[in-house]
Formats: sequence, structure tokens, C-alpha cells
Amino acid sequence: MAKNDDQNLLKKIIAHSKEYGYVFPSSEIYDGLSATYDYGQYGAELKKNIRDYWWKAMVQMNENIVGIDASIFMHPTTWKASGHVDAFNDPMIDNKDSKKRYRADVLIEDFVAKIEAKIDKEVAKAEKRFGDAFNKEEFLSTNGRVLDNQKKIDNINARFKKDIEEENFEDLKLLIEELGIADPVSGSKNWTEVKQFNLMFSTELGAVTEGASKIYLRPETAQGIFVNYLNVQKTGRMKLPFGIAQTGKAFRNEIIARQFIFRMREFEQMEMQFFIKPGTEMEWYENWKEKRIKWHKSLGLGEENYRFHDHLNLAHYANAACDIEFNFPMGFKELEGIHSRTDFDLKAHEEYSGKKLQFFDSEEEKSYVPYVVETSIGLDRMFLAILSSAYTEETLEDGSSRIVLKIPPVLAPVKAAVLPLINKDGLPEKAREIMDELKYSVNVQMDVKDAIGRRYRRQDAIGTPYCITVDHQTLEDGMVTIRERDTMEQRRVSVDEVVAEIEKAVDLKQLLKTL
Amino acid sequence: MAKNDDQNLLKKIIAHSKEYGYVFPSSEIYDGLSATYDYGQYGAELKKNIRDYWWKAMVQMNENIVGIDASIFMHPTTWKASGHVDAFNDPMIDNKDSKKRYRADVLIEDFVAKIEAKIDKEVAKAEKRFGDAFNKEEFLSTNGRVLDNQKKIDNINARFKKDIEEENFEDLKLLIEELGIADPVSGSKNWTEVKQFNLMFSTELGAVTEGASKIYLRPETAQGIFVNYLNVQKTGRMKLPFGIAQTGKAFRNEIIARQFIFRMREFEQMEMQFFIKPGTEMEWYENWKEKRIKWHKSLGLGEENYRFHDHLNLAHYANAACDIEFNFPMGFKELEGIHSRTDFDLKAHEEYSGKKLQFFDSEEEKSYVPYVVETSIGLDRMFLAILSSAYTEETLEDGSSRIVLKIPPVLAPVKAAVLPLINKDGLPEKAREIMDELKYSVNVQMDVKDAIGRRYRRQDAIGTPYCITVDHQTLEDGMVTIRERDTMEQRRVSVDEVVAEIEKAVDLKQLLKTL
Repeated sequence: MAKNDDQNLLKKIIAHSKEYGYVFPSSEIYDGLSATYDYGQYGAELKKNIRDYWWKAMVQMNENIVGIDASIFMHPTTWKASGHVDAFNDPMIDNKDSKKRYRADVLIEDFVAKIEAKIDKEVAKAEKRFGDAFNKEEFLSTNGRVLDNQKKIDNINARFKKDIEEENFEDLKLLIEELGIADPVSGSKNWTEVKQFNLMFSTELGAVTEGASKIYLRPETAQGIFVNYLNVQKTGRMKLPFGIAQTGKAFRNEIIARQFIFRMREFEQMEMQFFIKPGTEMEWYENWKEKRIKWHKSLGLGEENYRFHDHLNLAHYANAACDIEFNFPMGFKELEGIHSRTDFDLKAHEEYSGKKLQFFDSEEEKSYVPYVVETSIGLDRMFLAILSSAYTEETLEDGSSRIVLKIPPVLAPVKAAVLPLINKDGLPEKAREIMDELKYSVNVQMDVKDAIGRRYRRQDAIGTPYCITVDHQTLEDGMVTIRERDTMEQRRVSVDEVVAEIEKAVDLKQLLKTL
Repeated sequence: MAKNDDQNLLKKIIAHSKEYGYVFPSSEIYDGLSATYDYGQYGAELKKNIRDYWWKAMVQMNENIVGIDASIFMHPTTWKASGHVDAFNDPMIDNKDSKKRYRADVLIEDFVAKIEAKIDKEVAKAEKRFGDAFNKEEFLSTNGRVLDNQKKIDNINARFKKDIEEENFEDLKLLIEELGIADPVSGSKNWTEVKQFNLMFSTELGAVTEGASKIYLRPETAQGIFVNYLNVQKTGRMKLPFGIAQTGKAFRNEIIARQFIFRMREFEQMEMQFFIKPGTEMEWYENWKEKRIKWHKSLGLGEENYRFHDHLNLAHYANAACDIEFNFPMGFKELEGIHSRTDFDLKAHEEYSGKKLQFFDSEEEKSYVPYVVETSIGLDRMFLAILSSAYTEETLEDGSSRIVLKIPPVLAPVKAAVLPLINKDGLPEKAREIMDELKYSVNVQMDVKDAIGRRYRRQDAIGTPYCITVDHQTLEDGMVTIRERDTMEQRRVSVDEVVAEIEKAVDLKQLLKTL
């Protein structure tokens, strides 16, 4: 069975993540906080390793890219300039009886999905009746009930799209009423007006009675780079083209946060803004598409799991944009965005701050506002991409099964487990010696409990690429068994060799050299 | 001049931090956001390196400590249980005329500081008059004006302390009025009542009309560890004693945030909670005091710059607590706290969640709530400690001067700068070759502009421990000049040697081995 045919894959990953200390629901003892997760003892290491690989690949490897670490709190005018105060909204509608609030667009999408389900049902019925003789395309284009439903869908979608584009919220409300959409909780159709709801979290800074300032939790890290553009350029003596990279938390008050860690209200971004000469943006846009997909593919998660998706409807700040999509358990979804943002942001900050945010081009002997090509990746999504591709259920030759996380060894939370065959006779002491040799360079753990086979299974489930087994023979000849996670192949090697071999196999340097 | 005799040291560090891309005022193009700072291109690397060293020393080196990464958003009941909703307050007073709000305790402390200044003035006057014959202690215990003022101070402090302890805010207001304390801005003495003001930032999660939940930005990372105690213990099969470590942002709405990055409203903590058997806490408390001071001293910032300060007034959750204080430019101040927190937090979470947060001790054959010893260090403060001890003004033999940041090489943002003597004749190409060899393992930069002496000064100011100079001779014999930042000593070595030498000198492994 191909992995993504498994409808339950996401559920299995969520359960496995919890059972093996990768991801826990946040504040779980208080029954959790909606769409918020905590990274457990292995998850924290994996997340850290992904972040490190990105940082090194972007900052350490590129002499014209530097990193910064801007605060989450920023001056509120930043978000006026960026457009987030005015335009970072979802259309919301309240039900007067249940007092629940919904995204108007999602109510309509869910309604459309129900009609689509009807069509699917008709198809399934006909397929059953006609068997091999069934021609789906013909059926779809001739069956009366299907055609009626499809027409209904098309009409709704056309009107809905127009309403959204024209921000015609009165008609959006009418549409909801005409379709007879009811509150999924109470069944009531007693709706308020549709209103825009801003997705930024706000809080109050300071404690002055009058004039405590309302500030926002940043909805993206990018603006922290733009407002620091001039400081970094001047103090770092940077010349175009150059980039500023940053990783950090961002916050969006999503009404419908879902799909595990794919869409959370608190999430971590890894962004890089590349400042360039106007007119060179398409060249750099292509260049960064290439560089970024190469970075992804270096991890060996399977080239077939990536695809580019060009944006047809461009955001107000972009003149070219695409996503790198990954084949998640929910299908192909955005993992990283690459955007040619023009000079929109820097110009907006010039306007709102009254400061010049330009670059003096000594060849052209003039100053101008640089253009920007951005690469923006969700760290939590990258984490989910790795877990999804790593999670494997295998039936072994002896008929037993195992679950193994085939995480790229350089990113694995634990690089090696040292297993004394039995927990006595000097074996644990010898194991600890090996651990002590390895622990300065890699994350290593000792595992002494249960039969050796069970311990192998446990390390498979954690995703530990190497197990080192210490037995009585080891005390005599200094040889240990090294077992590889993916192949389960076992070899006898000397302790010195095993240390050197593992250090080399998980050395990030080797991966960086492939970029 | 001893460094800390320099009254302007903090100012100089702030200016240097900005000029050399370590720390910028946040959102500076919008004239900054009060007490918020952004880490620039070198600051971000230094901060990251400190965090890495702490993480590796705590998590990678200790087989019974694991790390997690909990979210900033937590279930609001967490903060009821921890006591923060009810007790994390400052007493505030508003001036009715200026509409400004002040911390009542700070108004009084400032008033007392003014009387202390009067005493200092008397002392200085007398010292000048009597010269070498001046006996300060005698003077303080006999001079009438000094004695009067000292008595005044003692009376104010006694009443103030009593008011705070008894939460007698009516009398605190009376005290402010009786002392004739005026609003420093307007001079008005027209005060409101004193009220408690909670230091947690709050925001609204979700968008349900009635019932959007008020949540807080965590004021400490510790609670993220406590609520995950059971998940980590079970899924990680941890046995007492064991620790959970975490780094991350925390937020406090301090009324008076000041002293650069020492006290910010948004800051980063590095905390470790060590779960132990009740009754063993004093032993572990001492053990962690010892381990943590050793970690600090391993960085070589000067042993005389640290001291322990025992807490006499213990927080409600602690049965022993101390600070590791560092000799900052403002004097000895808290850098890290080590607290024996008993079972206060876990018991409180048991009570509020109704879940058992215990450990089954198989030797004793019973379950109990573990005790906790915590180590908690401010990453931003650690950053400031390093910058303060690193910042050095030197007069050189030739009479010129330099500013050098003597940052421990393993933590330095840039490990080496490669400098082609002139920017032609194949020297930049050779320099790039060397950079390309080093860049996989360390952060390295090329610096081509200006005379070589100026470039050395610039790298000194950035804190780069090694400069590698490529000259015409290099092209012939493959030898380069390596210059050490602190000694300014220069040697000729081969390119291979220089790479190996630098990699070794900045290898974190070596530092970890000293712990």
C-alpha cells in the first residue's frame, strides 16, 4: 500500500508523536489548548536540528547572507505599513442564538463540500451497478442529478468569489441565508452581519492609564527583517545583493486551526529576505527556487514528494510567487513560499517612518529602494513533512511488524543508542564508556531495560539511526555490534571504528557540502 | 582603570552594540519600542552560540536530562495554579493630573535614593576638607545631618516594608503623600489609590463572540515543563532523579524596564527543572549550585565576577534559593537563579487539573509527587555578561588605541576573517578558497576593504578571534599569517594548519570536556 493511500496516516502520526515524546497537546493536563502543541523530548531535538540545518545552509554557507533575531513585539506602526492592520482579515459571521462565530467563507465551503459528497455518492452507486463497464467521465457529463448539483456548485462558487473580491459582505450574508445554511452546533439560521476579523493577536504594552499602547504579536517574522534593513546594511557594510535570515515565532488568530501542527495559532517561521537591484528580481526568484528545492531534496525525503505551485492570484506586494508543496498525509500542501515582493515593504516603511530605506549603488552612482525576493518556510510544517515521510510500518521476514521513523540521520533526535546486552557483568559500564566517548559530539542514549529485540523496536520507533550492542565478547575483543535502523543490518566493528563511523554519518558538514 | 570604575561602561557597550551589529533598538525606524531590542547580525550568532552551549551542557551531556519546547500559549488555568494570576503583581499608583502611572515602590525607593545622595554629598565634602585624616565610619556615626537623614531612611524603609508585607496599600499611599513625593513629570502631588497591577500580558484566543478565551503570554518557561512532567516521564521512561530543560521566550509587562537588555518585557530564558525524591532536595540544590557555577567559570569571564547571593526572603514555592550574581557594569546583579521549589508547582497542578502528577518509586514501592530543584538563567543577561566582560579599550605600544571584544572564541559570532592583503593579483581568490574550506565547520567572513590595520581593528571590534591574512607570498609557499585577537600575535602557518588550528580552537567539544 502506498503510504498516502492510508487514510489514517495523519492520525497514526499524531498518536505515534505522542507515544514517543515527539509532540504533545499543549497543557494536556488541562485538556489542551485548541490547536496548540508542545514538542516533547525527541520533538524538541528534531525541531532544533531542522532549524540548525536551515540556518547553516542559509547563513553560514552564504557569505552575503547574515542572520538576525528580532523581537516578537514591534512598534505598532510596523503593521500599519505592512498592511496587516487593514487587510489581514477573515470574514466572520455570528449566530445570534448559539453565540458562536464562524468564518463565512468556511460555512460556504462546507456547504459546497456537502453537494460534492452527493455527487460522489451518485458516482459510487453507479460504479457499483455498472462494474467494469462504468465510465466516470461520461456519467458526470450526462447524469441529470449530477449535472444539477454541479450547476448549483458552480453558481455558488461564482457568486462567492465575486462577493469576496468585491468585499460585498451584505451579499455574502444573503448567500448564506438563501442557501439555508444552519449553525452546525445549534441548527439555528439566525445570523448577524458578516464582518471582517483581524487575525493578529493584540495585547497592551506598559501600564500608563491613558495611552497604554496596543501592540501585536507579529503575524510574520519578515517585517522584523525589513525594519532592520538599514541597520544591518550599514553596520554589516553589506552590498547588494545580500540577504537577512531569521527564525522565530509568529502568531495568527486562525479561526480554524487544524491538521495537527500544520496550521497552528503559534508557529515558527524560517525566513530570508534577499535584497537586490530592481530589475534583477526574476533572475533571483528563479535562483532561490532552485536553491531551496535543492535544500529540500538534500534530505532524501523522496523527490516525488515535492512540487512547485505557482500563485496565479498574486498578493498585493508580489510580482511573482510560488509554493514548494510537499506530499503531506493530507495531500500536497504548502511547505515553503518563494515570493518576489518588489519594493513594496521597504517603500511602505519609508512612507510610514519618514526614513530613507535605500541603497547607494556605487556603480550606478545613485540610491534606490532595493527589491526583495523572500524564502519563507514553516518550521512546524517542515517537522511534519519529515515525520510523514519517516513514518513507516513494515512487515518483517519473520512475519512480525515494526514501526520505524526513517528520519534522515543528521536530523534524528538521538543519533545512537548504546545497549548492554544484559544489565550486569560489567556490560553497562562498558556501554557507558562508549556513550561517554560519543556524547561530546552527538546526542546518544543508553537503553538497558527489556530484551534486546524490544529495545531495537523502541529505538526504531524513536528513529535512532544506530544501535550499538555491547555483549560479553565486547569485554574480550573490544568489538561491538552496530545495527542500522533502516536496513536492520548488523555488523561487528571495533569501538573506535563505531565512534568514528557514527560521527561521520551524522555530520552536518557532509550534508552542507552537497548543497 | 578597573573596568567597572568606568561609569560610562554600559553606555559604551550600548553604543558599540549598535555600531557593530550586536543589538539594535527594536523597530528603530519608528523611534523604537520601549525596552525592546533586536539582535543584529553578530548578536544573533552570539545569542545562538550561548544557547547552544547551555543546551549541550545540560541536555547532551547529562543522560538523565532531556529537553522540550513548549508553546508560549498555555491553558489559562496553568497561571491560576502557578499563582501568577493572583500574585504576580506590582503596586501601582496613578497621578491624576499627568495621567501617568508609576510603581509605588519605585517612587519610594527613588525618594530614599535622594536622601542617600545627600549623605554621600556630606561625605564627599568632609573627605575633601579632612583629606587623609578623614575617617568615613566615624563621620557617618557622628555627623548630625547624616544621622538625621539615616534615621529618616530607616523609618521610611521600615514602614514601606511593613506596608508591602501586609499589602496595606492605603498606608502606602499615605506614605507617598506624607513624604511629599511629586510626579517626576508634572510635579503634581495629586495621587490615586495604590492598586495591584498584574505583570502578565494577556490576549484573546479564538473569535467566539462570547467565550473567546483570555490567555496569557507565559511569564516564565518553567510552567511549560511542569504541565509536561507526566508526558515526558512516561514516554521517555524517565526515573528519578531526572531533569527537563527548555529555552524560550517569556514576557513580563514590567513598568520599569531598563538597563539595556538586562530587564526587557520580552526576554529569553534557559530553564531546567530537576525532579527528585522528596528529602534529597538540599543535596541536589548544592549539586546544581556547583554545576552551574562551573559552567559559568568554564567561559573564562573572570572568577572574581561571580558570587552567590542567598535569598533570605524565600518565594512562597521555595525552601532554598540563591542567585548567581555577575559583576555587570551596573554592579553585581542576578544572572541565574537556583531554587529548591519543593513540590509546590506539581501539587498545585494536581489540584487544579485533577490529574495525578506523581512518580512510582519501585524501590520504595509507593507513588509521590517529586520535589524540584530549578536552574533558571536569562539568555539576554548572559549575553550582556559576556559583552560586558569582553568589551575592552586598550592603548597599544605605538600610542594608538583599540576597542576589542574579547568574547570566548567558542562563542564568538565570527570565528575567523580571511583578509587578502590587497583586493587583486589572485589574493581574493586564494582567500575565498580558504573561506570555502572553513565555512562548513565554522562561521567565517572575508573582509577586503581598507588597509590591513583598519581591517584588524574592525575584526577586533566585532570580536573575531582569528584573522588570516593572504599575501603574495601565500601564492608561492601556501603560508598565511594568522593573527590572534587578544594578543595581536602574528605567525606564519600553512593553510592546512590554519584550518585545523581554528577548527580546534573554537570546537565546543573541548569546552564541554572541561565541565
